[in-house]
Amino acid sequence: MGIKVFAPASIGNVGVGFDVLGMALERPGDEVIARKSTIPGLRIAKITGHGGQLPYAVEENTAGVAAQRLLEHLGAHEVGIELEIHKKMPLGSGLGSSAASAAAAVLAVSELLRTGMSKRDLLPFACMGEQVASGGFHADNVAPSLLGGIVLVCSNEPLEVHRLHTPAGLYAAVVYPHIQLLTREARAVLRAEVPLRDHVRQSAYLAGFVVGCFTSDLDLIGRSLKDVVIEPQRAPLIPGFYEVQAAALEAGALGCSISGAGPSVFALCSNSLIAENAGTAMQRAFQERGIATDLYLSKVNPEGAVVC
Amino acid sequence: MGIKVFAPASIGNVGVGFDVLGMALERPGDEVIARKSTIPGLRIAKITGHGGQLPYAVEENTAGVAAQRLLEHLGAHEVGIELEIHKKMPLGSGLGSSAASAAAAVLAVSELLRTGMSKRDLLPFACMGEQVASGGFHADNVAPSLLGGIVLVCSNEPLEVHRLHTPAGLYAAVVYPHIQLLTREARAVLRAEVPLRDHVRQSAYLAGFVVGCFTSDLDLIGRSLKDVVIEPQRAPLIPGFYEVQAAALEAGALGCSISGAGPSVFALCSNSLIAENAGTAMQRAFQERGIATDLYLSKVNPEGAVVC
Repeated sequence: MGIKVFAPASIGNVGVGFDVLGMALERPGDEVIARKSTIPGLRIAKITGHGGQLPYAVEENTAGVAAQRLLEHLGAHEVGIELEIHKKMPLGSGLGSSAASAAAAVLAVSELLRTGMSKRDLLPFACMGEQVASGGFHADNVAPSLLGGIVLVCSNEPLEVHRLHTPAGLYAAVVYPHIQLLTREARAVLRAEVPLRDHVRQSAYLAGFVVGCFTSDLDLIGRSLKDVVIEPQRAPLIPGFYEVQAAALEAGALGCSISGAGPSVFALCSNSLIAENAGTAMQRAFQERGIATDLYLSKVNPEGAVVC
Repeated sequence: MGIKVFAPASIGNVGVGFDVLGMALERPGDEVIARKSTIPGLRIAKITGHGGQLPYAVEENTAGVAAQRLLEHLGAHEVGIELEIHKKMPLGSGLGSSAASAAAAVLAVSELLRTGMSKRDLLPFACMGEQVASGGFHADNVAPSLLGGIVLVCSNEPLEVHRLHTPAGLYAAVVYPHIQLLTREARAVLRAEVPLRDHVRQSAYLAGFVVGCFTSDLDLIGRSLKDVVIEPQRAPLIPGFYEVQAAALEAGALGCSISGAGPSVFALCSNSLIAENAGTAMQRAFQERGIATDLYLSKVNPEGAVVC
């Protein structure tokens, strides 16, 4: 008997909070099944879906590393456990695919071993898994994928995350264009310095976004959902980005920016109808450049990773 | 018959939000009296207190300019009005002295003329007055002085400010060391660029501070009340700053940083007793360097400028 866990995709940065903000989606997401095995130690038994290129070696796989670090912490690394990873979302899309697998893996293993650990307890181990993929200890995708909601990462070391209040009605349209963009590449384009003036403006936007969440002021969220620091540097990596963004805003979206390191583009909207309109408008804008896309419509996922 | 208005001092930046955050104090503050006069136009009739060096020319005086812009907006610049300005707080202290005079002036004139304008309506005019002193259109002292509370300036143009929730118990100790430090000088030391890494950390601190206010999480406010961008650059302008800061934290303050452009240093505390202890500890630390000080103890002022 195994434990099957679903962990959702997430919008890293949420446009306004580079490396500190993340938001969980309802779908897509990854599934990880953990089950006991007679062979001692952790083993990845199966990977399906988009993950044709994912490694089976535990120490090279985000889900594997996350599970392994948890087992070591529990002193249970001799227990025989096998993982099945079912990738149900694109890799390298900017939707936190590796984070979702890591989040699902730790929860599945924890439930299998009935550790009684909370999801917050599990978070650091999921982050260690995500580290394999991203090269850095970042919780801005892992935390929302595991805990759900809109999450502020106050500190990575020591790890401290806080869930913001999620305003009713907030809906996301996420468009994944079928182009390749490596996170490493998207990091490499970033200047090491930010003009003080932009730092001040961006800080005000982030703080305004947080106020908007707590006061359920969707208009304020819209006025605050701007990125004057990162977006201008990464937009050139996504063909037609500004047309896509304009299409979303014309369709009534509160705001629109790049999801994580891209290439996915997200729009936040005040209801599901506007999200649908914004989503199809964004798809059309990509299509005009001959770029195929997937569209995901989703409210903010309130619960994150779940046993299913 | 005149209208007398008190407008309080304020802590600009509040350490964590350079140019975007401000907090109103209960005291000290300035008083402005506005009364009708038979001579047409606006005139500054009297200035008392620390303002020996303040100009009587309307267009050179922050209170004068603020009142004048309001009168022009009302089409009432021919009405005879005289102002008395009673400075009851030090100039150039980093406590928003010019902002307080501007805030008091617009409210006094508005009440005198029974305009029915709200304090929010009056805010832009007070900012125009403050501009004379600071050289820039900043609302981070004017807004708290006029409106009270902890205020986030989301945008200067168009002007948009939001009051944060003020956690019960939050208390400030503010120490004004008797040294001269010009705002211009304090601005001049600032580097034009911020390392991306510090931008991310500081953004997280500001967002954490805002979350802490809305959730009344004083510990989170304490962990967030840090300035890795501006404080390290301005601290050398305040002799003994780090000793003063350490003294405040040892006395139990949640956090401690520079008020506005300095030289005043503030500590936020979880109650009035700790604030008193932190305040006297900070005074002692300055005293060891032979620097005389004034101490102001105050809870967050919830109402800002008031007719009295």
